Amino acid sequence: MPKPSQRGANMPESPIRKLVPLANKACEKGIKIYHLNIGQPDLKTPQAGLDALRAVDRSVLEYSPSEGILSLRQKLAEYYHRFDIDVTAEDIIITTGGSEAVLFAFMACLDPGDEIIVPEPAYANYTAFAMSAGAIIKPLLCSIETGFALPSVSEFEKLITPKTKAIMICNPNNPTGYLYTSQEMNQIRDLVKKYDLYLFSDEVYREFCYTGAPYISACHLKGIEQNVVLVDSVSKRYSECGIRVGALITKNKLVRQHVMKFCQARLSPPLIGQLVAEASIDTPKDYMLEMYNEYVERRKFLIDGINKIPGCYTPIPMGAFYTVARLPIDDADRFCAWLLEEFEYEGQTVMIAPASGFYTTPDVGKNEVRLAYVINKEDLAMALMILEKALAVYPGRTI
Amino acid sequence: MPKPSQRGANMPESPIRKLVPLANKACEKGIKIYHLNIGQPDLKTPQAGLDALRAVDRSVLEYSPSEGILSLRQKLAEYYHRFDIDVTAEDIIITTGGSEAVLFAFMACLDPGDEIIVPEPAYANYTAFAMSAGAIIKPLLCSIETGFALPSVSEFEKLITPKTKAIMICNPNNPTGYLYTSQEMNQIRDLVKKYDLYLFSDEVYREFCYTGAPYISACHLKGIEQNVVLVDSVSKRYSECGIRVGALITKNKLVRQHVMKFCQARLSPPLIGQLVAEASIDTPKDYMLEMYNEYVERRKFLIDGINKIPGCYTPIPMGAFYTVARLPIDDADRFCAWLLEEFEYEGQTVMIAPASGFYTTPDVGKNEVRLAYVINKEDLAMALMILEKALAVYPGRTI
Repeated sequence: MPKPSQRGANMPESPIRKLVPLANKACEKGIKIYHLNIGQPDLKTPQAGLDALRAVDRSVLEYSPSEGILSLRQKLAEYYHRFDIDVTAEDIIITTGGSEAVLFAFMACLDPGDEIIVPEPAYANYTAFAMSAGAIIKPLLCSIETGFALPSVSEFEKLITPKTKAIMICNPNNPTGYLYTSQEMNQIRDLVKKYDLYLFSDEVYREFCYTGAPYISACHLKGIEQNVVLVDSVSKRYSECGIRVGALITKNKLVRQHVMKFCQARLSPPLIGQLVAEASIDTPKDYMLEMYNEYVERRKFLIDGINKIPGCYTPIPMGAFYTVARLPIDDADRFCAWLLEEFEYEGQTVMIAPASGFYTTPDVGKNEVRLAYVINKEDLAMALMILEKALAVYPGRTI
Repeated sequence: MPKPSQRGANMPESPIRKLVPLANKACEKGIKIYHLNIGQPDLKTPQAGLDALRAVDRSVLEYSPSEGILSLRQKLAEYYHRFDIDVTAEDIIITTGGSEAVLFAFMACLDPGDEIIVPEPAYANYTAFAMSAGAIIKPLLCSIETGFALPSVSEFEKLITPKTKAIMICNPNNPTGYLYTSQEMNQIRDLVKKYDLYLFSDEVYREFCYTGAPYISACHLKGIEQNVVLVDSVSKRYSECGIRVGALITKNKLVRQHVMKFCQARLSPPLIGQLVAEASIDTPKDYMLEMYNEYVERRKFLIDGINKIPGCYTPIPMGAFYTVARLPIDDADRFCAWLLEEFEYEGQTVMIAPASGFYTTPDVGKNEVRLAYVINKEDLAMALMILEKALAVYPGRTI
């Protein structure tokens, strides 16, 4: 039997994935699970998107162009204009989800051994895409103590080597909900300029900014237009994660040319998803506002609730629909498994993502978890109550 | 401006892609183009697949499981049983098109520097996926003189080095239409066993075998069950290339585990495509038979037509819907560009794929082209007539 690749063997399995079989067993025992672990919004997909499915009037479901359907790219360009992002359809390449945009950005810009500085905790799959491309993620540790603010320029510079080729940010951030300030974004811009780096900016949560503080896109930064590669996706903002439509946006023509080679190899992004996405961009403001207000309330509810539980703390996230919380526990991986395997309160428990999957720095964030507020308030209330009950009896409780 | 990756720069651009701007210009001049260059069937998607779109009864278009929807995997397992391929839903991972199955097979099985022996001419995008994974394709040259039959074992063995980790075949073959014989498949099996290699087998054209000769799947070969990774796609057989649904199938549990890490990183394959694909598997036999008969006729029509043109020759393809033909020309890249840029017959021309894109061996197949018979017979007749007229006046004609 031939051996699989070292790359595959080395790729870490997400700690959430390890919990799935435990959750399945709990379900089989009839235990009801409140899911605080997932990034799939429960909100309804816009009607315009659902209607687009019924309206498909084609007798052959054929390949779409490798760069995506022109009318979708034009519509996306208009959408970005609303956020003062000055791009044309030509700058936009449609990808199979934001995931593929990250992978292709790495493939087209980075060679094996090249290094990417990523503030962490960070979206776990960046590591998988970096490993696929043979690139190396150099984590820049942010702390819950400072609300996950960006460390100083000197901390960045400590990580810069001749192999450093890029900085990758997620803004608003998954998993922390942090929104980078104008000052932080300028700091990143100066670094990118000084060291001539790529800036990969994952901005799929831009619709979810809650504090009135401005959303600063990497595309707003002057003087680094040729360095920026934006990653986007319609998944979260229209609650249509399943259609797999994202985008890679850059003013850098050479990068686009190289990305297109990877796009052409995989032939085309999903046709029907593109039709749904295009229709969704016309979603009335009412839908977006209703969704926004719902998240605003859930956020307040969850954050207040967590901070009221003795020994728990979470900073207030400014965006996205996640927060990272510190719990009074010895080990979040153990605690999250224990919740599913050994705990129940009146036949119910909660499923939570240990923060270990969001750190590549070893032994950091062991008492942290990521909580998503993508379930309704009644369920959030139950989940919080159950979490408090669980923490009260968890054998590995530290304080 | 930071430099893009060497990987991106090295990745060859498909010769067909280079022709696209020329085709666009010809269109602008009002010239009608008959497309013999594409792999997108013109046949109607089965009604069951189209109806599935209208029947989507979900209010949230959410992520599907990373390994694909269970009911689709079960249905595919039943489908494979019809071809005596003994697999269960557990052995099947749904991918975003067959393309992703190839990429993930390479990523999970091969490390940078590992070598894959590929009989050529071969599907051009294998090279792109190999380059993405850092693997190296070692071409094994097949000749139009022998109808693209597989060379002898000794020719294979000349290519085997300590870095050889896999053989990749496409059966029935794109671009040649060749169907491997039982003897050839056994020869491959013996090599795979002797050197403990992976056998990646792309069998997306299995429904298209025309000569009564048996289709031998890599999964039929005894004693190498742990070495085989099958690549499949619903694109061609249901004329639904745009939905991007493929599959990676293997009995090797460790490979599946590693492939799943890449699947989890990209979250999920397209939801709606999976619903369409599942419905399409129930397509009545009538549809499949009608499609089959249509291709049988087109094949005969095209092959006879080519071989009647003075100086042209193509072997008879046993499967798929392509053939590679030798034309009396100096250089197929030049000829195919000339057809679009300089030639017209009564306001019409043909677009053809130069075979250079299917060879990695330099300077081979320079007078060969790939012709696809995915247009109707009337159009094929016109295309053949125009091709003959063109060859009669092409300045680089050799005989």
